[in-house]
Amino acid sequence: MERCTLTDVALAAGVSRAAAGKVLLGSGGNGIRVSPHTALRVRRAASKLGYCPNRAAQQLRGKPSQLVSVILSLEAPAVELDRLLQIERQGCRLGLQLTVSVIPEGDPLAETQRVVDTMAGRGVDGFLFITPDESLYTGGFPDLHGIPAVYNAVGERFSRQYAVSMDMVLGGRLSVERLLCQGRRRIGTAYLGPNVFSLRRLQGIAQATDGAGVTCLPTFFLQHQKDIQELPEALAERIVDEVAVGGKADALIVENDYWAARVLNAMKRRGVRVPDDVALIGYNNLDLGNFTDPALTTVEEHNDRIAEAMLRLLTKRMAGQKPDRLVLVAPELVVRKSA
Amino acid sequence: MERCTLTDVALAAGVSRAAAGKVLLGSGGNGIRVSPHTALRVRRAASKLGYCPNRAAQQLRGKPSQLVSVILSLEAPAVELDRLLQIERQGCRLGLQLTVSVIPEGDPLAETQRVVDTMAGRGVDGFLFITPDESLYTGGFPDLHGIPAVYNAVGERFSRQYAVSMDMVLGGRLSVERLLCQGRRRIGTAYLGPNVFSLRRLQGIAQATDGAGVTCLPTFFLQHQKDIQELPEALAERIVDEVAVGGKADALIVENDYWAARVLNAMKRRGVRVPDDVALIGYNNLDLGNFTDPALTTVEEHNDRIAEAMLRLLTKRMAGQKPDRLVLVAPELVVRKSA
Repeated sequence: MERCTLTDVALAAGVSRAAAGKVLLGSGGNGIRVSPHTALRVRRAASKLGYCPNRAAQQLRGKPSQLVSVILSLEAPAVELDRLLQIERQGCRLGLQLTVSVIPEGDPLAETQRVVDTMAGRGVDGFLFITPDESLYTGGFPDLHGIPAVYNAVGERFSRQYAVSMDMVLGGRLSVERLLCQGRRRIGTAYLGPNVFSLRRLQGIAQATDGAGVTCLPTFFLQHQKDIQELPEALAERIVDEVAVGGKADALIVENDYWAARVLNAMKRRGVRVPDDVALIGYNNLDLGNFTDPALTTVEEHNDRIAEAMLRLLTKRMAGQKPDRLVLVAPELVVRKSA
Repeated sequence: MERCTLTDVALAAGVSRAAAGKVLLGSGGNGIRVSPHTALRVRRAASKLGYCPNRAAQQLRGKPSQLVSVILSLEAPAVELDRLLQIERQGCRLGLQLTVSVIPEGDPLAETQRVVDTMAGRGVDGFLFITPDESLYTGGFPDLHGIPAVYNAVGERFSRQYAVSMDMVLGGRLSVERLLCQGRRRIGTAYLGPNVFSLRRLQGIAQATDGAGVTCLPTFFLQHQKDIQELPEALAERIVDEVAVGGKADALIVENDYWAARVLNAMKRRGVRVPDDVALIGYNNLDLGNFTDPALTTVEEHNDRIAEAMLRLLTKRMAGQKPDRLVLVAPELVVRKSA
C-alpha cells in the first residue's frame, strides 16, 4: 500500500492542504486558522486513511525532531522537578522531544552509566543532567558514547564539562546584604553539612560580612542528617536554642525553605519573634515560603534561566559548535516578611 | 568490524563475564558484587572496544525495553509532577522507558492530538495521560492510532476509556467524618467552582452529613479564580468573613492545601483560632501542610497507588489483555493539628 500523504487527507476531509497541515503538523504559523469542527474532520480523515503525520512532518521539515534524554537525581525533588518542567516547556518550543530518567538507587555513577547506555541505544541526540551535587561524580564522569551533554551542577569537577551552575556565592552574599540593610549584627548559619553548596554560600556570606563590623557565629552543621527536606522538630529547636538564643543571633540563614519553615515554628514555640527578634532567610524560593506566617525571605535560583542556558548550550553542541563551557546563573533575593 | 561482545569486554578488563554483565547490563541480581574500582575498569574496557551494551542487553532479554509516552497537563503542578515521579520510579522497575510531554497552551485537545501524533511517529508502545480534569475532553478523545492508553482523570466521560480515577466522593466523606468525631456542627466549604472535583467531594460531604444532625453552610465558590494554587489574601479573608465568621462555621473544608494555608493565615489576622474556634481541612497532602502552624489535616490521594494502577492497566493492555476499564483509588485522611 502506498503511503498516504497530507494531500490525500486534505482531499478526503474536503479542506485545503494548508489547513490539513495546520491541524496535523502545526505548520503554516498563525496565518492559517482552522475551526475545531474542521480540525476534528481532518483528524478523522487522517485516522481513517492511516496517515502517519510524524514521518511526513519530518520529511517536510527536512530533519527529524531531536530527542534529548534528561537524567535527574532527586535530592531535593521540588527543585529538580521544577527545573525539569522548565526544560520541558522551553525544549518543546525548540522542537526537542524529551525523555526523562531518574537515576535509580545504588552506586550513582554505575546507575547513571546504565541509563546513559540505554538512552544511547535508543538514539538520543543529547543529554541533560540535572544532578546538582558534584559528589555524584567522585568516580569520574559517565562515558557518553560521543553524544553531546550538558550538566546542571555545582563544583570544580565540572570545569572541563559543559555545565550550567548556580552562583551560590552570590546567593550567600545577597542574603547578608539584606540583613546588613536591616541593621542585623550577629548572623547565624545552619546547613546540612560542609558540602559544595553550603561552602559556596558561606564564602559569599564571608565576602559580604568582611569589614562590615558584624559577627558571623559558628555555622551549625547537621552532618548526619540525610534528607535535606526534612529537618526534624527537635533539630530545629536545637538550632534555635544554640544559635538564636544561646548565640544571641539577630539573623539566621538556613539550608533551604523547608528548614526555614521548621525553624520558624520552633522560634514561635520558644517565644522568639520573626523578624522582630531574629530575621530568617531560606533558600530555593519554594512554594511553601509563600504560605508560612510570616512569609519567607529566600533566594530564587531562576530555574527558567537555568533551563534556558542548558538548552542553549546543548543545542549549540548538537549543532557542532563549541560554546563556552561554564554558564553561571545569578540568583536573586526574594524579599518577604521574615527578613 | 565485528560487533564487540560482553565476553570481549570481560577479557579486556580481566574480569568474569558475569561481572562484566553486572556492570554493563545490570544482570546477575544480588548474587554478584563488583567493586567500584573493577566497575570502572569494565566500563573503560567497554568504551575502548566500542561495546554497545544496550543492543546486547536487548538480545539477552529477548525483547527491547518498551517506550511509554506520558502526557501531562499542569493544572496543579505539585500534584501532577509527583504523580509523574511515581510513574517514573515504578515504570523503571518494570523495564519501561518513559518519555514525557507537557501539553502546550492552546486548544487542549488539538495540542494533545499533536503530541500523540508525534509520539506515535516515534514508535511508543503506550500512552499515559495525567490530565485529571475531564473538561480537557469536551471535544472528544484524541485518536491514539491504535496504541494502548490509560487516563488518569475524574469524570463520567472516562467510562468507556481505560482510566484510573481518584475516589473524591470518599475524600469528602472522610473529611466530614473526622469533623463529626470532633463534635463540629456547622460545616463550611470553599471551592474553586462547581467542577467535577468539587461536586464529587460535595457529594461525599452530603453523604456523611445526611442525618447526622449537622448543618452544611452554602458552598463558597470562586468561579472566576483561574489558578487553583493561588488564593489571593483578599479572597481568603472573604471566605473567613463570610463562612467562618458570618456563617458561624466551626469547621471549614477547602479546595486544597494551598487554600487552607491562606485561609489559616487569614483566620489568624481575624483572631479566629485553628482548630479551637474553627477546624480546617485541605486536600492533596502537599508538602507545605507539614510546615504551616498548626500543620494541616488533609486528604492524601496516594499518587504511588495511582501510578501503580495506571502502569498495571497499561502493561496489561500492551500485552493484549482486556482488564477492567476503571480503577478507583481510595484516598486517606492525614490527621494533623488543624482538624
